[in-house]
Amino acid sequence: MTIDAGGTAVTEEAVGSLGAGTDPRLRELLTGLIRHLHDFARETRLTQEEWERAIGFLTATGQTCTDTRQEFILLSDVLGLSMLVETLNADRGPGATESTVLGPFHMTESPVRELGADIDLVGSGEPCVVSGRVLSQDGTPLPGAVLDVWQADADGFYDVQQPDLQPPGNGRGLFTADAAGRFWFRTCVPSPYPIPTDGPVGDLLRATGRHPYRPAHIHFIATAEGHAPVTTHIFVAGSDYLDSDAVFAVKSSLVEDFATTDDPSLAREFGIPNPFRHAQFDLVLTPGAKA
Amino acid sequence: MTIDAGGTAVTEEAVGSLGAGTDPRLRELLTGLIRHLHDFARETRLTQEEWERAIGFLTATGQTCTDTRQEFILLSDVLGLSMLVETLNADRGPGATESTVLGPFHMTESPVRELGADIDLVGSGEPCVVSGRVLSQDGTPLPGAVLDVWQADADGFYDVQQPDLQPPGNGRGLFTADAAGRFWFRTCVPSPYPIPTDGPVGDLLRATGRHPYRPAHIHFIATAEGHAPVTTHIFVAGSDYLDSDAVFAVKSSLVEDFATTDDPSLAREFGIPNPFRHAQFDLVLTPGAKA
Ligand SMILES: [Fe+2]
Ligand SMILES: [Fe+2]
Repeated sequence: MTIDAGGTAVTEEAVGSLGAGTDPRLRELLTGLIRHLHDFARETRLTQEEWERAIGFLTATGQTCTDTRQEFILLSDVLGLSMLVETLNADRGPGATESTVLGPFHMTESPVRELGADIDLVGSGEPCVVSGRVLSQDGTPLPGAVLDVWQADADGFYDVQQPDLQPPGNGRGLFTADAAGRFWFRTCVPSPYPIPTDGPVGDLLRATGRHPYRPAHIHFIATAEGHAPVTTHIFVAGSDYLDSDAVFAVKSSLVEDFATTDDPSLAREFGIPNPFRHAQFDLVLTPGAKA
Repeated sequence: MTIDAGGTAVTEEAVGSLGAGTDPRLRELLTGLIRHLHDFARETRLTQEEWERAIGFLTATGQTCTDTRQEFILLSDVLGLSMLVETLNADRGPGATESTVLGPFHMTESPVRELGADIDLVGSGEPCVVSGRVLSQDGTPLPGAVLDVWQADADGFYDVQQPDLQPPGNGRGLFTADAAGRFWFRTCVPSPYPIPTDGPVGDLLRATGRHPYRPAHIHFIATAEGHAPVTTHIFVAGSDYLDSDAVFAVKSSLVEDFATTDDPSLAREFGIPNPFRHAQFDLVLTPGAKA
């Protein structure tokens, strides 16, 4: 009960309080958390007032969360933690599509859509076709693979951010690859957008002189029988902010050309008037237990 | 933009994103926070699923907070962080009253009361007098010193936890020391109590086999002109849980006898029938800028 001035005794007391029946992995996580949290406070000589501000910040972050907004994911994103966790768990085989962060806007179920459907329900953006194949690592097509797709509109907002302006499901679709593992859908070219800045995370960005922008991207979660799913983005080549993503999520292998085409056969194939933008890439999954 | 498998690049990107105009202390705190958070994730090889559970836990913690409940302070308390921060900032002089945690129940303004008033508005507990002096470090009495006092009732609940059973301000009082620096008030002997266990922090305690109890105590914040204020408790000698406080806040110098007395002159002095419990101690403040 005697606490030394450096406060190491309370660290040992806190670690030692974890009961003998604690799940070993939970013990490992909490022990690491307590030691790092205490080391942080000791090394920075955290003041009472700073602690109070931190409590207030975390409370406000939790209270900013709603059914359609996840401010704690946003905080994890801007601190680089989300991208780090993605990287640590990305034991994908060579040639497999790299993963990146989930982001805070995968909050609603994407509507099931037919291949070729247009996810731009409002039709305000630059017409675009996204197409490709879902493949296993050895190049075998994966018929029946499911793609969950979501993106911001041409103004840089997700449907859940603008319930009065966008119909629910705008920019979202759940597609099933065809018998040859192919997928294709219509949309608009996404825009760079600022992450929401009207909450505690926005205050943090302003206080540290950071811009809130993400380069233009489309989110994907690809799942297929017998393969590890991948959560990733496709980034629009040439977009602003590719080298300063507010959430550190860009990987060069994920940057794709959204080239303008006026190829009549492509226009016929996708049932879209020329000219249009076309992004074409394959999503390559690693065989594995997590189907 | 190429992320190494160990994820150290994203740590440097996140630290490097803090703008040149960032307040130096904020930069120091955020740099330390990012490095420790990332080291924690790397050392424990935090999985995506564990990260998701952590996000859910922090969100629920924020959403459990209300005007009368502070679950993030509770979390900080049970992780030993609150006590550590207290200890790091306790540069009190020799002989000064030691500080301990604020706790989550200092959420409401204590009613101004006359010296001698009874803060046990319900009268259910064992009658008790608390008395003593507020002194400067050299023993000089501090007339006009203000004591903010709060405690749980004899059943172990604070007024804010039982708005239907306890009148607001039960167990609370704001007292001003008399011309000789003396204070005295009536109350009931506090009981050990469990911290609230119906929220995320309760889940954490159950998962780690920890009991939620705190030894019996009365909270004080003592302030006086020209002195550093002290936030502390007085613990009841002999109480259960003095050696296993759920929030690690016990310091041996803060344990006081609540002796039973039937001294007729004391009973007369405090206007209370014999026998009663009596805790007597001085609160000693350090001269300093923070008045
Ligand atoms: Fe996004
Ligand atoms: Fe308390």
